Amino acid sequence: MEKLSDIGERKAIDIIGEIVDKGSEAIGIGDDCAAFDDGEDFLLVSTDMIADKTHVPVTMSPWQIGWYSVAVNLSDIAAKGGLPLGLVLSIGLPKNTPVNFFKQLVKGANDCAKIYNTAIVGGDTKEQQHLTVCGTVFGRVKKNEFMSRRGMKPGDMLAVTGYLGKAAAGYLAMNLKNKNKTYFKDLLEPKPRLKEGRLMAENKTITSCMDISDGLSSSLYQLAKINDLGFCIHKEKIPISPILKEIANENKNIDIFDYAINFGGDFELLFTLPKNKFKQLQLSLKKINCPVTAIGEVAKETEIIRKDGDNFSKILNKGYEHFKSHF
Amino acid sequence: MEKLSDIGERKAIDIIGEIVDKGSEAIGIGDDCAAFDDGEDFLLVSTDMIADKTHVPVTMSPWQIGWYSVAVNLSDIAAKGGLPLGLVLSIGLPKNTPVNFFKQLVKGANDCAKIYNTAIVGGDTKEQQHLTVCGTVFGRVKKNEFMSRRGMKPGDMLAVTGYLGKAAAGYLAMNLKNKNKTYFKDLLEPKPRLKEGRLMAENKTITSCMDISDGLSSSLYQLAKINDLGFCIHKEKIPISPILKEIANENKNIDIFDYAINFGGDFELLFTLPKNKFKQLQLSLKKINCPVTAIGEVAKETEIIRKDGDNFSKILNKGYEHFKSHF
Repeated sequence: MEKLSDIGERKAIDIIGEIVDKGSEAIGIGDDCAAFDDGEDFLLVSTDMIADKTHVPVTMSPWQIGWYSVAVNLSDIAAKGGLPLGLVLSIGLPKNTPVNFFKQLVKGANDCAKIYNTAIVGGDTKEQQHLTVCGTVFGRVKKNEFMSRRGMKPGDMLAVTGYLGKAAAGYLAMNLKNKNKTYFKDLLEPKPRLKEGRLMAENKTITSCMDISDGLSSSLYQLAKINDLGFCIHKEKIPISPILKEIANENKNIDIFDYAINFGGDFELLFTLPKNKFKQLQLSLKKINCPVTAIGEVAKETEIIRKDGDNFSKILNKGYEHFKSHF
Repeated sequence: MEKLSDIGERKAIDIIGEIVDKGSEAIGIGDDCAAFDDGEDFLLVSTDMIADKTHVPVTMSPWQIGWYSVAVNLSDIAAKGGLPLGLVLSIGLPKNTPVNFFKQLVKGANDCAKIYNTAIVGGDTKEQQHLTVCGTVFGRVKKNEFMSRRGMKPGDMLAVTGYLGKAAAGYLAMNLKNKNKTYFKDLLEPKPRLKEGRLMAENKTITSCMDISDGLSSSLYQLAKINDLGFCIHKEKIPISPILKEIANENKNIDIFDYAINFGGDFELLFTLPKNKFKQLQLSLKKINCPVTAIGEVAKETEIIRKDGDNFSKILNKGYEHFKSHF
């Protein structure tokens, strides 16, 4: 009998897409958010569930769990260029959970929402055997500013905000018993690129966009598949997290490129745009202190190729995927 | 150290309300849905999480689990008089879940959404130790048709749609090893009162409304608290499920009144309205085959009193509450 572990999360999501009869107005399953026709705007909705046993490192504080549940949802709104309207949280907890743990979790969620100018507008608690937090965010974006996953053209520039491998660095630091808590911050307290997403959307030059929380390699495969195109990635251009480099300096067996593109947990935006629009966008984002790096271009062929000097090789789809064996 | 089991679900939800800074436009936590200002309308959002170990009877099929997750969310939209726009589902499952189980679950969710003229517009799957389904629904209602939990006045009629104790009857039938599967339907495949809620909303006579999935007694306490008023309930008027009566006829130790008002799981609407508006509303609902029964009235005193012939006694708050000891 076929199990979910045989097919993995992405295929499971495809199955949802095959079974459900989407409303005629909905731009559906397979993008970071569902998008609903609302006159001049799209209403955006996204949902994300985290559970202690499968997603939460033991060192994560309840405040961080709350922060994280909100941040991952906001990142989906960011990737579509939207403004969040609010979030609802369903919190499942064991009976014997200390009330203070619960309060700290709600506080973390609220603090994250507040910093990003939005609010927790509804909440529900349920008894559960294990901690489970399911957040749902809804937002809004003008139709002509909506950044779909679909739309890139061969020859478009492929770019990414920020640095990759930050979350991996936090994970490695934790496992190497590094005591520097600032190293864990990017893993445990991700910062959704909401302001950046809005600015990109207003620019109206982006041809496709998604967040890369599943890892760069997995995200590239998803973008390639949905657009029936491919990519050529320049290895030396991947903006690798300085902390990851530092950790790798002290631990020679760490392949920083592998961690940077496959580990996931970096809530950065991956996007394409016409080459001649790149400089101007980079400048706008620089003004709000967001580094942007061009890492390759869109190719007609459906493969994802890594260019390393004069060598070409295939990038494998090794990003994080639920149900399947992990990194 | 104080645990969630010491305070119960309702107090936990109060804590969320105390901690979070709600957006200025949001009518917030403590109603069936969060409601957002959207011009002439409110956007409605509600979320509900179910987990196999705490909410799902072992006999529930995966199709029924899917149906149930959607139905409970739609019931919250019904209680506010809204029209659903769509739902998103987060599904947490163990790795070794058969793919077919997953497919049936999604099919059940989709079938329920379709029957109620709405759609699953987004979905996410996550690896979890136990089955957890978190559904979030969003909808829309004209501001002047929104049915809040707040607003009832002393002297208003208190009424309820349908019959009470249907879910309890299903639960009892199951435990008594009754083989008649139609007895379980109301427990496992609840029907949200969406059409009825819309009709009530259009009537513009309802002064407060909520769904009674937590049980009548608990719902009465919630309405009383939020309005700082009370109720007088006429015991003989409670519309008790015919199946519950039938089961109690064969099992004399079953207190049907206790089950009808405390067990929960009946997705009916509990509402108040001026006495002189009742007949007309009852007639309108009769036209769509929905029985409505006046069961009491709103009282100035904050107590919830049961009138049984000439005897008066207090109704206790014994409805289902997570974290606390159960029925």
